[in-house]
Amino acid sequence: MDDCIFCKIIRGEIPSAKVYEDDEVYAFLDLGQVTEGHTLVIPKKHARNTFDLPDDTAAELFRRVPKIARALKEALPIQGLNILNNNEEVASQSVFHCHIHLIPRYSKSDDFGLKWKDNADWYTKDRYQEIAELIAAKVD
Amino acid sequence: MDDCIFCKIIRGEIPSAKVYEDDEVYAFLDLGQVTEGHTLVIPKKHARNTFDLPDDTAAELFRRVPKIARALKEALPIQGLNILNNNEEVASQSVFHCHIHLIPRYSKSDDFGLKWKDNADWYTKDRYQEIAELIAAKVD
Ligand SMILES: [Zn+2]
Ligand SMILES: [Zn+2]
Ligand SMILES: [Zn+2]
Ligand SMILES: [Zn+2]
Repeated sequence: MDDCIFCKIIRGEIPSAKVYEDDEVYAFLDLGQVTEGHTLVIPKKHARNTFDLPDDTAAELFRRVPKIARALKEALPIQGLNILNNNEEVASQSVFHCHIHLIPRYSKSDDFGLKWKDNADWYTKDRYQEIAELIAAKVD
Repeated sequence: MDDCIFCKIIRGEIPSAKVYEDDEVYAFLDLGQVTEGHTLVIPKKHARNTFDLPDDTAAELFRRVPKIARALKEALPIQGLNILNNNEEVASQSVFHCHIHLIPRYSKSDDFGLKWKDNADWYTKDRYQEIAELIAAKVD
């Protein structure tokens, strides 16, 4: 895509701090280092987000994630890692070229965290089962 | 793994609200529905987390994610989706069988969110480049 900032990074038209590259995937440091080593892993083939990702692209993208995760652990004194992919604006997607954030964690009180409200008690067992069936019916 | 709750779910020893299953992958509703339709996608082969995930398992796991994401969009009135994988306790991992959370988003003020502090200005350009090289040197 001509106007896509990540496609431009892949083509080398915009500089980036590259971490990894092969035929299918490019990985580089996020400009906004939420924590030190915050890395983006992206498919070279443009897709808006995971809703639009071809199965093979998804597979080849995530195939590279464990080795990059391990490299982060070897290179930096990280204690854990959040892997995050945001889809659409309501979910905080800001660049519309599918990307996976690898966010190293150094402590529970560093600069990344989750707002996480467990709603299990809002659901009846029937509604719970009903939702599962609704989704299952749509998986092709 | 005998004691792993997700291995027990895969074997049917603990009931679950199944969304999808094939030879490699199992998907079911998280008991703690952070938002309605909150789904976990897990590899059938036990691994502690993404640090320990074999490349092929990672590929086959994520290959199924786009079609489950699209099924969520067809089944429920979602506006977006956060895909999240937590590794180690500091990163909020609570069950130590690798799993990917698919968290549907209905609005920016629903019950999921990110604590996200952009630190770009903390880093000098040199440190930024240095981190990238440290990580790149460790990717095998
Ligand atoms: Zn692009
Ligand atoms: Zn992003
Ligand atoms: Zn297990
Ligand atoms: Zn979890």
